[in-house]
Amino acid sequence: MATISIFGKGNMGTAIGGNFVDAGNEVTYITKDSTVDQLGDIVVLAVPYPAIAAILDSYKNLLSGKIVIDITNPVDFNTFDGLVVPADSSAAAEIAKKLPNSVVIKAFNTTFAATLASKKVAGEHQTTVLLASDDSKAKEQLINVLNGSGLGIIDAGSLKRARELEAMGFLQITLASAEKISWTGGFGIFK
Amino acid sequence: MATISIFGKGNMGTAIGGNFVDAGNEVTYITKDSTVDQLGDIVVLAVPYPAIAAILDSYKNLLSGKIVIDITNPVDFNTFDGLVVPADSSAAAEIAKKLPNSVVIKAFNTTFAATLASKKVAGEHQTTVLLASDDSKAKEQLINVLNGSGLGIIDAGSLKRARELEAMGFLQITLASAEKISWTGGFGIFK
Repeated sequence: MATISIFGKGNMGTAIGGNFVDAGNEVTYITKDSTVDQLGDIVVLAVPYPAIAAILDSYKNLLSGKIVIDITNPVDFNTFDGLVVPADSSAAAEIAKKLPNSVVIKAFNTTFAATLASKKVAGEHQTTVLLASDDSKAKEQLINVLNGSGLGIIDAGSLKRARELEAMGFLQITLASAEKISWTGGFGIFK
Repeated sequence: MATISIFGKGNMGTAIGGNFVDAGNEVTYITKDSTVDQLGDIVVLAVPYPAIAAILDSYKNLLSGKIVIDITNPVDFNTFDGLVVPADSSAAAEIAKKLPNSVVIKAFNTTFAATLASKKVAGEHQTTVLLASDDSKAKEQLINVLNGSGLGIIDAGSLKRARELEAMGFLQITLASAEKISWTGGFGIFK
């Protein structure tokens, strides 16, 4: 069992929290009104990308030594035609730069909230979460902690692969926004 | 019925050609030994990215006015840790710059050859091809020409989305190379 702190209690935070609970962990949500003097073993940043910077500023010390999970898709909502992070970087890499004493894992950004809640893509195929991080042990720990959640999990490599995960997450959002796919569907992963 | 010229007769070229034939079109393969004085309505560049430049140089005039399909994943095989095209661009965008009188469509790069040949991802879910191009009519034409192939096809937007399609294609290749998925599996698309 691990203790999980989730910043944000929207669709994504709630669905991700549900999976940690289903796997037998203790989840605490942190919202704007929360008073926080400690964080769990694993911290999930389940807020939109523009809200991340303020959290990192306020909680930098408490985040030290923690596994920090970035789930964001840093879409440029002014243009809806690209991301706000540098093209050769990623939200996860930018966050990691600001948290040198934390371990950052990119995860949950290629899976819509509904597919995390139901554990199925389009009601028919197991939802699989892709992880990217430079810390293999932390990825293993996350996989163990989510064991029993009902989600599939694949280690997709180093933190550098967050660039590709975010491209995929962005593409999936554009497809759903254009009604080419539904928000309960999207990319399923077949081994 | 359309006439299709395919540069390259490897796994990808053959699988793509099979789909055009299945949809009732006439396919001609072009290899290094071919003598070519004209090209079909649609031209597929089914060669590795490093081999594209020479084809564009040799066939620039014949490619004028054609729909040119770029299927490449421009992986940096020295590092296997990124792409050889600029991070904010794509192979398709680079090709389009060199072919101002052709219409470039990105397609077939997020689907492994085996899934194009069998029309199924992992033998169980319809293979779906994602298209990106700035020319909506050309994308419609390609969708019509492939009608009856057994493949699903989704218009994923402008040519700019080729960046995301290539990120996804690269990610899928890294996952298969790391044996996290098989070369008959990968990303399935659920509506």
